[in-house]
Amino acid sequence: MGSLGDFEFPQNNALLNIAGGSSNDNPLDPEEFRRQGHMVIDFIADYYKNIEKYPVLSQVEPGYLKKRLPTSAPFYPESIETILGDVQDHIVPGITHWQSPNYFAYFPSSGSIAGFLGEMLATGFNVVGFNWMSSPAATELESIVMDWLGQMLRLPKSFLFSGNGGGVLQGTTCEAILCTLVAARDRTLRIIGNDNIGKLVVYCSDQTHCAFKKAAQIAGINPNNFRVIPTTLSSSFSMCPKALRNTITADVEAGLVPIFLLATVGTTSTTAVDPLGPLCDVAKDYGMWVHVDAAYAGSICICPEFRHFIDGVEGADSFSFNAHKWFFTTLDCCCLWVKDPAALTQSLSTDPEYLKNKATESKQVVDYKDWQLALSRRFRSLKLWLVLRSYGVEKLRGFLRSHVKMAKVFQGFVEADNRFEVVVPRNFANVCFRISPSAVMNKTSNGVLGEITNSNDISSPRTKTKMGMVNEVNQKLMESINGSGGIYMTHSIVGGIYLLRFAVGATLTQESHVIEAWNVVKQHAHAILNSIPTTQ
Amino acid sequence: MGSLGDFEFPQNNALLNIAGGSSNDNPLDPEEFRRQGHMVIDFIADYYKNIEKYPVLSQVEPGYLKKRLPTSAPFYPESIETILGDVQDHIVPGITHWQSPNYFAYFPSSGSIAGFLGEMLATGFNVVGFNWMSSPAATELESIVMDWLGQMLRLPKSFLFSGNGGGVLQGTTCEAILCTLVAARDRTLRIIGNDNIGKLVVYCSDQTHCAFKKAAQIAGINPNNFRVIPTTLSSSFSMCPKALRNTITADVEAGLVPIFLLATVGTTSTTAVDPLGPLCDVAKDYGMWVHVDAAYAGSICICPEFRHFIDGVEGADSFSFNAHKWFFTTLDCCCLWVKDPAALTQSLSTDPEYLKNKATESKQVVDYKDWQLALSRRFRSLKLWLVLRSYGVEKLRGFLRSHVKMAKVFQGFVEADNRFEVVVPRNFANVCFRISPSAVMNKTSNGVLGEITNSNDISSPRTKTKMGMVNEVNQKLMESINGSGGIYMTHSIVGGIYLLRFAVGATLTQESHVIEAWNVVKQHAHAILNSIPTTQ
Repeated sequence: MGSLGDFEFPQNNALLNIAGGSSNDNPLDPEEFRRQGHMVIDFIADYYKNIEKYPVLSQVEPGYLKKRLPTSAPFYPESIETILGDVQDHIVPGITHWQSPNYFAYFPSSGSIAGFLGEMLATGFNVVGFNWMSSPAATELESIVMDWLGQMLRLPKSFLFSGNGGGVLQGTTCEAILCTLVAARDRTLRIIGNDNIGKLVVYCSDQTHCAFKKAAQIAGINPNNFRVIPTTLSSSFSMCPKALRNTITADVEAGLVPIFLLATVGTTSTTAVDPLGPLCDVAKDYGMWVHVDAAYAGSICICPEFRHFIDGVEGADSFSFNAHKWFFTTLDCCCLWVKDPAALTQSLSTDPEYLKNKATESKQVVDYKDWQLALSRRFRSLKLWLVLRSYGVEKLRGFLRSHVKMAKVFQGFVEADNRFEVVVPRNFANVCFRISPSAVMNKTSNGVLGEITNSNDISSPRTKTKMGMVNEVNQKLMESINGSGGIYMTHSIVGGIYLLRFAVGATLTQESHVIEAWNVVKQHAHAILNSIPTTQ
Repeated sequence: MGSLGDFEFPQNNALLNIAGGSSNDNPLDPEEFRRQGHMVIDFIADYYKNIEKYPVLSQVEPGYLKKRLPTSAPFYPESIETILGDVQDHIVPGITHWQSPNYFAYFPSSGSIAGFLGEMLATGFNVVGFNWMSSPAATELESIVMDWLGQMLRLPKSFLFSGNGGGVLQGTTCEAILCTLVAARDRTLRIIGNDNIGKLVVYCSDQTHCAFKKAAQIAGINPNNFRVIPTTLSSSFSMCPKALRNTITADVEAGLVPIFLLATVGTTSTTAVDPLGPLCDVAKDYGMWVHVDAAYAGSICICPEFRHFIDGVEGADSFSFNAHKWFFTTLDCCCLWVKDPAALTQSLSTDPEYLKNKATESKQVVDYKDWQLALSRRFRSLKLWLVLRSYGVEKLRGFLRSHVKMAKVFQGFVEADNRFEVVVPRNFANVCFRISPSAVMNKTSNGVLGEITNSNDISSPRTKTKMGMVNEVNQKLMESINGSGGIYMTHSIVGGIYLLRFAVGATLTQESHVIEAWNVVKQHAHAILNSIPTTQ
């Protein structure tokens, strides 16, 4: 039964000798490591140097790579020179260049030299820091850095180790949400019994990241008990505490058990901010766990003038933000703080014989495996430590403020051009804008959109509402811009409005890139508006 | 409410200027990246060169690092030279050196030059490859490499993309188990209704990794429905299909619903192998999902002479192994294949407006976010691709065989010394051994152990069973060895037997290290056996 496929390697028994004899044949030989390592540093430095030459959004077609690579792994070794050549020729064209200064899509994935070097060191040591003993420095540096960062954010002391809370580095916000949700779930189930899992209810808004619905699904929350509070443009898409209370009250009256609220500071579509204080007050009345997801916007709360956006966090149970988004720390690195670490560890602890050790038994150490989903964990705190030390609080604030300033510049361009409008007030470094309805309608004599060139994307104009027409024009604008490769933006739809998101935050972006981006937007908008034939 | 802590940074308003002006002040400036990158490559190369100078198991005390680092982040930047000095002085002493050739603990975390370089490239590009469009190369390379690796393992074609299954890179086995468990859970709940989640039952053996219990807990499986099939020394701690069937039958008769079996190839304690074929036959009778966890041993199944250990995998639904354990790919990198990707994506898909795109709508692409827990994902396939290409199938087999050969050498030493015994047959490159009961008992005149020096760890000998005494002697041996810093091993307890695990697999390990390790074991055993006073 061993040979199920029809796949066969070329084999030469004479070559099947046992490796590892001579030192420089060892796959971790230090001098060969040095030689190849220097080559790859130069490769990446050159990549950054030339990054503006590439279309930001990859322009390849599905299946492009299969046509270029062999159908099976090589039997014999290939040189690093050959491999790097293939990276340049075959991988780079298929990359969407998140590090490009012309990248304004989604949220940034802001790399930095310090973040990169920290990742290198962690990869070089390659320790598996599941518990304290497996590498004390990995655990202790993480606890220290999380307290540093908590201080920088002016989190309440109750979230810090120094105040009997504590911080942990997760891979992503998705993991942070799932961990805290499971902790909240089990806290309640310990009281009402596991058989009542079907009664548990969780809450968020229609602007909450999709990660929460997925986490609830994974954690076995009944999909019928996932409550979504609607938001509106009039409140800038923030969650309404009164609506939340009404929903909870109805659930409690129906015999259900509210356990968890996810509040967001900086939603994905429009960077809306939920009012933490009032929301936490509601949740408190029902003994619910509140998690604050500040994945994007948390970073800038290290600037005193932005700190007010997380006012009220003292009423929450946990708080997280992604250092890999807008804090110069390479993917992945989500910072999570909790007030009650025991709630996490009661759900996530394991204690097999093969991991028992005296340090754990002494209860004097943190074993982070019990604060996260997985057992194994990388030495992530190194990169965060390098970022904090290489730049310091002052420069980090300066970098973030420079992104906000550039977003303001872009906002100014939008506001000064009457063909465009800003859709929602800008909170951080993301501008939500569109071609305005009036600019579209002005192109028609009777408010009915005529044929737009020969695009297949835009269906019969006669059947469309005004909003549908405006949305299609804006969708066309975005696709036109991204297809050009010059800059990359993404969209969302909120309250029925299709909007373009201009998110500043790529590390290499400077004001000149923003000015040029606006020129690109104007050119494409001009062409699209001009392609609308006036109906007679 | 903005200022909750009493923490205050030194501030100088004159210094709060906006950064990002001059190019080389940019935190991703290519030339500064080059300069600092070369420095860190040299730092890591030197670390590998000198790695044998450090005690393998870190000898620091809990809290050591807090005493050495400041209590808050620096306000002003620090140089890379200063930081690297601190890494050397303060971090390295707190590291347990998983890359040391004298590391024989847990399972290996086998780094390699190729794995490191792949990680560098992924970190340098720093793309967030949640769906195809966000970086087509990240998705397509992953699918290609997973098919390559599936072929190397001679997985049934039904696990490969080319056979309508497919592979995905997860961070860890814990994630792979949780994803497949949730898929299996929901497959059943779609039939019997979400209200019946409390009836679902999952199965494993007492040797299954603790990750499974944790995954079941996270997925909301009732803890009362977690079944553990006992194993025994007589069957080398492998799971008994008949015992499994009896347990399932009883559950079904009690109105419960069996959904998932976790079978292991290469258990953590003793590298035991569950009989996949017969176990899958049992599971099939009840429509259960079978996941095969070959976290450690999967790697060596690329060698034809070891492939039989996963015979029967064709009856399973999913299979995973950790390339970051014993496949020269740095942490983290777990390879998971499933026969029915739709089962995964039905549980794990998200489709928010801000991620909608034409490639996804065309259904011609894989969006890996729907195959895993989190949304964001790193470009992990690069490192696996570099490992496969840099070494090729032939050398990879050679490296793995050389580790098995070294383990055989160690086993030979143990067997040739009548003070020791091998506890269970060695399957791969891990030897489970101990000081034999006879060697301990020979030190006593009446089979009762006298005082062992003045150790507090060993309680009153008069109250102990023979097995307890032998276990204590072996525990003392392990602690003595690890405390010396010369080599590092870990232990387990199976069937009441305390055993030492000698796991060969660190990339730098050569036969000379194994010979020297045996000398260390002998010296410490000699001292401990001699410290047992003969009772009169």
